[in-house]
Amino acid sequence: MTPDAFPVAPDTQALERGAILSPRFNADGLIAAVATDAGTGEVLMLAWMNAEALRRTLETGEAHYFSRSRASLWKKGETSGQVQAVQEIRIDCDQDAVWLKVAPGGDGGACHVGFRSCFYRCVEGGVLVERP
Amino acid sequence: MTPDAFPVAPDTQALERGAILSPRFNADGLIAAVATDAGTGEVLMLAWMNAEALRRTLETGEAHYFSRSRASLWKKGETSGQVQAVQEIRIDCDQDAVWLKVAPGGDGGACHVGFRSCFYRCVEGGVLVERP
Repeated sequence: MTPDAFPVAPDTQALERGAILSPRFNADGLIAAVATDAGTGEVLMLAWMNAEALRRTLETGEAHYFSRSRASLWKKGETSGQVQAVQEIRIDCDQDAVWLKVAPGGDGGACHVGFRSCFYRCVEGGVLVERP
Repeated sequence: MTPDAFPVAPDTQALERGAILSPRFNADGLIAAVATDAGTGEVLMLAWMNAEALRRTLETGEAHYFSRSRASLWKKGETSGQVQAVQEIRIDCDQDAVWLKVAPGGDGGACHVGFRSCFYRCVEGGVLVERP
């Protein structure tokens, strides 16, 4: 058991109603993480965490993710300044997704394209339209 | 090209700033979908869509997902009554995640365990605590 490992829930009752954090990472060792702005509720981004990223997020109170493209741990804001101070972290019923309510630092954004949220386009009539 | 297929963005500019919906499904043919309550902003669930689920969601205005455990298309609420009327659908910068703002039908919930949101537990001091 590595320092980053989490326990496995023994049954559905423990998984769904238990008090033991037992995240279910996928075949690539990752769990989906949704970050919302703690102030506005806006969904800022959807990213991925491995066990180490989740552990560091819990220990430091700042969001860490796992970059699939770079195949490495990634502290959000390390280069952009858009550090995410985690105000609350939740996990879902079957413990394969987490929800972070964050206060975004730096310019208050989260998206590398320059928008506040990565979800800056609506699907309207089959096409994408940029919307605040 | 099947009726459900979507185009592939030719380059990063088209992917990130274009008007063509070009979802990037993963190796299993799935894209992550976050559903929030259009009224309260609460994150209700994180699920998955294949191309058919996304197509049907766009065509019907009701959320369809792909059940990985049952390996089949799944209209949310078909058995539970918790149909999700989609008020807005957004896609993220690299088009590998969608965000649905929904009005949940039936009892207003989304979670099979009986809670309104699947994210009914906070991680606090390393353990899980059920919170409204």
